[in-house]
Amino acid sequence: MYNLLKGKRGIIFGALDENSIAWKTAERVHEEGGTFVLTNAPASIRMGTIDKLALKTNAQIIPADATSVSDLEHLVDEAVQILGGKIDFVLHSIGMSVNVRKGNHYTNENYEFTEKGWNVSALSFHKVMQVLYKKEAMNEWGSIVALSYMAAQRVFPDYNDMADNKAYLESIARSFGYFFGKNKKVRVNTISQSPTATKAGHGVKGFDDFIAYSDKMSPLGNATALDCANYTVTLFSDLTKKVTLQNLYNDGGFSNMGVSQEILDHFKE
Amino acid sequence: MYNLLKGKRGIIFGALDENSIAWKTAERVHEEGGTFVLTNAPASIRMGTIDKLALKTNAQIIPADATSVSDLEHLVDEAVQILGGKIDFVLHSIGMSVNVRKGNHYTNENYEFTEKGWNVSALSFHKVMQVLYKKEAMNEWGSIVALSYMAAQRVFPDYNDMADNKAYLESIARSFGYFFGKNKKVRVNTISQSPTATKAGHGVKGFDDFIAYSDKMSPLGNATALDCANYTVTLFSDLTKKVTLQNLYNDGGFSNMGVSQEILDHFKE
Amino acid sequence: MYNLLKGKRGIIFGALDENSIAWKTAERVHEEGGTFVLTNAPASIRMGTIDKLALKTNAQIIPADATSVSDLEHLVDEAVQILGGKIDFVLHSIGMSVNVRKGNHYTNENYEFTEKGWNVSALSFHKVMQVLYKKEAMNEWGSIVALSYMAAQRVFPDYNDMADNKAYLESIARSFGYFFGKNKKVRVNTISQSPTATKAGHGVKGFDDFIAYSDKMSPLGNATALDCANYTVTLFSDLTKKVTLQNLYNDGGFSNMGVSQEILDHFKE
Amino acid sequence: MYNLLKGKRGIIFGALDENSIAWKTAERVHEEGGTFVLTNAPASIRMGTIDKLALKTNAQIIPADATSVSDLEHLVDEAVQILGGKIDFVLHSIGMSVNVRKGNHYTNENYEFTEKGWNVSALSFHKVMQVLYKKEAMNEWGSIVALSYMAAQRVFPDYNDMADNKAYLESIARSFGYFFGKNKKVRVNTISQSPTATKAGHGVKGFDDFIAYSDKMSPLGNATALDCANYTVTLFSDLTKKVTLQNLYNDGGFSNMGVSQEILDHFKE
Repeated sequence: MYNLLKGKRGIIFGALDENSIAWKTAERVHEEGGTFVLTNAPASIRMGTIDKLALKTNAQIIPADATSVSDLEHLVDEAVQILGGKIDFVLHSIGMSVNVRKGNHYTNENYEFTEKGWNVSALSFHKVMQVLYKKEAMNEWGSIVALSYMAAQRVFPDYNDMADNKAYLESIARSFGYFFGKNKKVRVNTISQSPTATKAGHGVKGFDDFIAYSDKMSPLGNATALDCANYTVTLFSDLTKKVTLQNLYNDGGFSNMGVSQEILDHFKE
Repeated sequence: MYNLLKGKRGIIFGALDENSIAWKTAERVHEEGGTFVLTNAPASIRMGTIDKLALKTNAQIIPADATSVSDLEHLVDEAVQILGGKIDFVLHSIGMSVNVRKGNHYTNENYEFTEKGWNVSALSFHKVMQVLYKKEAMNEWGSIVALSYMAAQRVFPDYNDMADNKAYLESIARSFGYFFGKNKKVRVNTISQSPTATKAGHGVKGFDDFIAYSDKMSPLGNATALDCANYTVTLFSDLTKKVTLQNLYNDGGFSNMGVSQEILDHFKE
Repeated sequence: MYNLLKGKRGIIFGALDENSIAWKTAERVHEEGGTFVLTNAPASIRMGTIDKLALKTNAQIIPADATSVSDLEHLVDEAVQILGGKIDFVLHSIGMSVNVRKGNHYTNENYEFTEKGWNVSALSFHKVMQVLYKKEAMNEWGSIVALSYMAAQRVFPDYNDMADNKAYLESIARSFGYFFGKNKKVRVNTISQSPTATKAGHGVKGFDDFIAYSDKMSPLGNATALDCANYTVTLFSDLTKKVTLQNLYNDGGFSNMGVSQEILDHFKE
Repeated sequence: MYNLLKGKRGIIFGALDENSIAWKTAERVHEEGGTFVLTNAPASIRMGTIDKLALKTNAQIIPADATSVSDLEHLVDEAVQILGGKIDFVLHSIGMSVNVRKGNHYTNENYEFTEKGWNVSALSFHKVMQVLYKKEAMNEWGSIVALSYMAAQRVFPDYNDMADNKAYLESIARSFGYFFGKNKKVRVNTISQSPTATKAGHGVKGFDDFIAYSDKMSPLGNATALDCANYTVTLFSDLTKKVTLQNLYNDGGFSNMGVSQEILDHFKE
């Protein structure tokens, strides 16, 4: 609509189906003139409908397991070749807790599951950046964004070990963002998004009630996947060049609420 | 350049001369298709060169003392009439400490000066919003931004009572942002900007050294006035509709640094 | 009980009646072997029952309007003389919003009331410290504590302009704490306490419901006035010498909660 | 000295030699009347001088690899039996980065090392608490403390993957602290300590310069190991019963500094 990303090239991780934030972001980036490759784990590619998105946004799909450094190396090499130049933007939208999937309570973690979820949800972000960094695959003033959630700061009882994974992820953004900024002039930020009705969200117990609660707590209501896509576009654009190492709340104001009147009224009944 | 603010109307407080953040913001908003009125205190208008900006951006100037509710009421009425409709965006870029000007150390405040600085720098933001709110002068999904500084969170010895004023200002953004969000669908945020070589900044002792220090601490260097203007444009645009109650750092990463290698190397010598 | 404050001398502001946090603190400090003077505004002294506390804790009462520098100068001089030496600890427990008392909504502030409340609730803390600092009335490794509330960080709709006042208060703690630490080796902190059923709290609309809400949100329940008194004792003791410039939550965990299961269950019904 | 911990039983992890924070804490807890078992990894026991501490504090040593759930189960069983009752306090002072030891830069992590360091430094805290929780081995109003560092929030270039580990550790404190609080009335906090000249600290490049820098940035100077031990004693005592889910800075004020005058003066030269 505004040509905000005209001429920019990127990699978008994690589009599964049309409810995915990564999906909406790909659509919006495409509308803003950006070109990109899409990637996801082979299993997620089979499970979802990413082909449809690729067609719509004129993008190629390169399967990659984000926990595999060699897959990521291949992905980055391919992306640079396909897109015809270095990378300007990256979206990391990856998260999965085996403990959640298997129904293990937070006080009864299976630590093999914990390790697996940490590797997929958090460490993968370091791997993505380390590969990009070593290959010098990012253009100056490029922008890397990962999606996070406020459970990194505060307790949401059903969020389980994803809370700890998001805290680790946000720390990686700061730690790696320092070196990426200083040495490559690339910015790294996380967006802490409202709970969103995606495939991933559905795994969390009582998620619909929680979305309603969050909506009533937030002065502007929950941010949708499209809101997140729009916000991400601004972070990929040249208008936010000095914003880095930040965790940015896109949440209708939830993060700075103690309590809303609606929640309090509801409680009083 | 992108038509991001096409059709949007606003009020911009605090443009003094071409170094002002508000000045750069006015220029960028104009380029993005927004229309606005400019305002400042009569004394500041005389002291600066705002006429030049008005000419360049095709804007009218409406003098207003931001501590005077009646001046603000007049300003808002005029703005709506001149611009031909309700307001979509407001920039509050106002700050002044009499204690700093008079050279009073923080441990030796003159409390009349403190009250004056608080009224101008902090309470004025409440007054601006209260007038807009009562007059129902903001359009839905409008955006209000005030400029702040990280002294609101952390100690910078020479920042004096402006630190406390900025803390109050940021609190107003949250407190009023709740009601503005819930009842009018308007978002309210503050930008916490790198130290910037404006007229206001020059009043602070040792400011040039401090700017150099801040630049070396920040992975991407200090954000300039133009960087701030660009960031503000994104916050005025329709791409950030659910971002509210936030204090957003535009600082090259300073806010999340413990220490940079350059500062540490410098220290070791 | 532990003699934690044996030999220490202090000033305690703000004990009104036996529900006051300052009252409980005075009792606990007395039990821990500290000696102190009690002070409050003349009107508050008349309204409350501080005489009873003075008798119980063997303390003298020195009336002082905390917005009056000359009253504070007199208070400090008297305290040093009565107690027989410099001051080791100070509790600032003062807060009052005229807008709240008069029923003015936050979006309809009377700015004279706002100024009055800011002066009493926030600026008084600066005045107290400036007088102590100039008179060199604090012993090295002394400890100054002010009571705050989380509305300084997050929105509680009925907290009104006290939110902004507390933000200013907490900023003073940091700003003045720097100079007091560096130059006098005195620490300055704020305690951000659970909502507490004191006289001051009763002024806030719907306060009982809010206390119940807060209790259910907090994993350990709300902290009581006695809990706060105990915590304050540790901050006055020699066991916390390097804790300074902090805002310390004594709140059963509320501050780091996104939502508790109980609140969510209640919401679902 | 005050009998603050009379009758309380605990487990102290991580005392290596007399510079260890855990060592100082054990000494101070002993002085305050607490009894405890000491534990460390077998290799650390061989490397250090914990026998001396055990003798001095009349404590038994139970070797345990904190990454091994079965070792931890054995430890807790033994501790309860030796001490004659359930546990009142636990100190987790464990941290180690293989990447740091091997000299791998943060942008060149070996991910097997990363996983090992995360397991030892961060996940071990979950394992300790999960074992205590499942065995119902904690008394009501017990207190669990883990040591952290501000690299969890801000960038210190040489802190490497320990920054991310500490972020994960602090998240565990909140996540598990919620369930431990709600269901067992046990509080869980982390102390974010000044850089301290321990064996572990020596591994970090340029550590002495960094300690000096930190000392000059902090209004009260760096907190020592003894300061940390004292602060931990207050958190183990009955005086802080409602403090939970917190990350508490014991750092002479560093965490809330933007810049100190001394650092700025040094920079200007």
